[in-house]
Amino acid sequence: MLARLTELRALIRITRIRLADGRALTYYDDREPYASGTATRTLHDSRDLPADQSHPTMRRDVLTGEWVIFAPHRMDRTHLPTAARCPLCPSRRGALTEIPADDYDVVVFDNRYPSLAAAVDPVPAWLDGDPLWPQRPAVGRCEVVCFTSAHSTSFAELTPHRVATVIEAWADRTRALSAITPVSQVFCFENRGAETGVTLHHPHGQIYAYPFMPPRTERLVAQAVAHHDRTGRDLLADVLAAEWRAGVRVVHQGTSWTAYVPAAARWPVELHLLPHRAVPDLASLDSAERSELATLYPAMLRWLDEFFADQGDHGPVPYVAGWHQAPIGPGRDLVRLYLQVFSVRRAAGKLKYLAGSESGVGVWLNDTTPERIAQRLRALT
Amino acid sequence: MLARLTELRALIRITRIRLADGRALTYYDDREPYASGTATRTLHDSRDLPADQSHPTMRRDVLTGEWVIFAPHRMDRTHLPTAARCPLCPSRRGALTEIPADDYDVVVFDNRYPSLAAAVDPVPAWLDGDPLWPQRPAVGRCEVVCFTSAHSTSFAELTPHRVATVIEAWADRTRALSAITPVSQVFCFENRGAETGVTLHHPHGQIYAYPFMPPRTERLVAQAVAHHDRTGRDLLADVLAAEWRAGVRVVHQGTSWTAYVPAAARWPVELHLLPHRAVPDLASLDSAERSELATLYPAMLRWLDEFFADQGDHGPVPYVAGWHQAPIGPGRDLVRLYLQVFSVRRAAGKLKYLAGSESGVGVWLNDTTPERIAQRLRALT
Repeated sequence: MLARLTELRALIRITRIRLADGRALTYYDDREPYASGTATRTLHDSRDLPADQSHPTMRRDVLTGEWVIFAPHRMDRTHLPTAARCPLCPSRRGALTEIPADDYDVVVFDNRYPSLAAAVDPVPAWLDGDPLWPQRPAVGRCEVVCFTSAHSTSFAELTPHRVATVIEAWADRTRALSAITPVSQVFCFENRGAETGVTLHHPHGQIYAYPFMPPRTERLVAQAVAHHDRTGRDLLADVLAAEWRAGVRVVHQGTSWTAYVPAAARWPVELHLLPHRAVPDLASLDSAERSELATLYPAMLRWLDEFFADQGDHGPVPYVAGWHQAPIGPGRDLVRLYLQVFSVRRAAGKLKYLAGSESGVGVWLNDTTPERIAQRLRALT
Repeated sequence: MLARLTELRALIRITRIRLADGRALTYYDDREPYASGTATRTLHDSRDLPADQSHPTMRRDVLTGEWVIFAPHRMDRTHLPTAARCPLCPSRRGALTEIPADDYDVVVFDNRYPSLAAAVDPVPAWLDGDPLWPQRPAVGRCEVVCFTSAHSTSFAELTPHRVATVIEAWADRTRALSAITPVSQVFCFENRGAETGVTLHHPHGQIYAYPFMPPRTERLVAQAVAHHDRTGRDLLADVLAAEWRAGVRVVHQGTSWTAYVPAAARWPVELHLLPHRAVPDLASLDSAERSELATLYPAMLRWLDEFFADQGDHGPVPYVAGWHQAPIGPGRDLVRLYLQVFSVRRAAGKLKYLAGSESGVGVWLNDTTPERIAQRLRALT
């Protein structure tokens, strides 16, 4: 298996097309005969789609200094359609979806309802422009990543071969989006389950390219800078060494990656995956790292689905899986890529809600401990 | 009505007792004959309750610099009991609840399942003590405030007379808790509705006294300090003036208070209430401010319940209502008391979930605009 995965990158065919309204779409075909068809056999997107009319904007919150994005056009987005109307399934003649092909392996395309748009018209008139809350068009990118053409499966069930293709797609898009001005961070993530706000059930993730450094990244960079100033050392290297030393929160220690529950886990189930090498992003992973990841990542998601099995709940467990990549610009050399996976489920049939303490003042309460979470996850490996 | 409310403070009888396990309870009786009984007629809490065995701890998250609280004993807390078993209703002979009285007006007592405990035993053995994530017993206070003895009503339906009593209770507890070391901020809040994590339906709120400055308060203070350094002026006075000037987000401008939708609202429904005078906390409100608030606050909650009425949804709308008070210590003079009320409901039958962008990297997306929220709320005033 390892040998095949290492050679995968040479086999992937990348095909870039435009949808009817001008949005970009990229196929990543990972086996012959290529699923999305030859360039001439690819279906033409003949839908009558209006050009992008969205005007996402952003304002800086004077109470926190953080940018908030406003995308009122998203109120109309497709909400939990039936499988027959799924816009992420391959097109059938007479029923064109977002993907104008009979089949595909992995595909990435511009979100039809973006929170961050490629180009934004003049600032709408309703913006009153007080200097206390600067406001700008929300420029960036929002892309959708379909992990498979099969509507009723999940990331955890993908083969390592397919996961490796998704990793190639993430790496390719990270490289491309990182080069766009004013992108400051590229965030590849998957929301799974209605409890995480999913509006489409087809296995898919998203990529957001933010035009500013997100608050959590800003704090990580500040922590890393302070740690470096104090000790001369790399913060995440020290976190990894400390977790290895403590042992009690490590769930899986591989060759290139270690999965552990962070010492200050905020969620009832939370797992981080850190590469042993200080790589800034997915695009910088070498073949051995990608290969190990292709097996390890879906395994982590399967542990999640079994987390509450002792309570009779065999999943699917709702989760958010997000790849924190180093920002583009200051601080990039002091942090590294890591994966954060967490669930809002706190017991079979019970969710953790963000109430007054978390949503109001930002203090997280956890009804379990990182050590207990790790103990349970280790029992599932 | 105003005259009566102004005199209310003189009428309130405050009675402090101890529950069977030593927890403190305070009655705020607001009319004669006093509902909670004379001192001798008050029921004795004869329950056989074990002494507090909780060991809440807190760790500083090395990735953000923020404290996270761990309270695993809370996993066992009472979860949505039937009305007959409600622990917040008055006691009946043979069925003792948390409140050992036949009736009460407003009552405040120490939470039986606190996230922040008054005294904490030696640090549990499972804490591994790495210097990267400092850990301490989570010392502070968690109190429960019952707004009424009537199980099936809501804050919005309370009379101004009763709301004024709640305000007196909040002010009294804020004063007392602010004097305790190491309390750094007192947060009075109400979570309403199962969608905000409520585990008891009886109308009640909570008071958390944190031993550190919560992240959101820390950022507000940093913003206020930067604004003062730059302009020599008070940040929240300038916010109020800017909102009055813009007008489009003001929902109600009273004598001592203005209710408005913040320019960078994060939630599909969000409303702030700012006093015109720079007061640090609820305890510092004068009689006129308290009196106006006693009428305005429940009115705001009624607007919330009607927010989606044009979609056939007449509430109850889930909400979090939190009183941001000035921290005790540095920054206290640069910020002021304000109320933040918000809902996770984004349309009839639909919730806003915190997904990858919000929960992963801290970037809020709002599918509406502050101006639209304000327009809808003004139509309901």
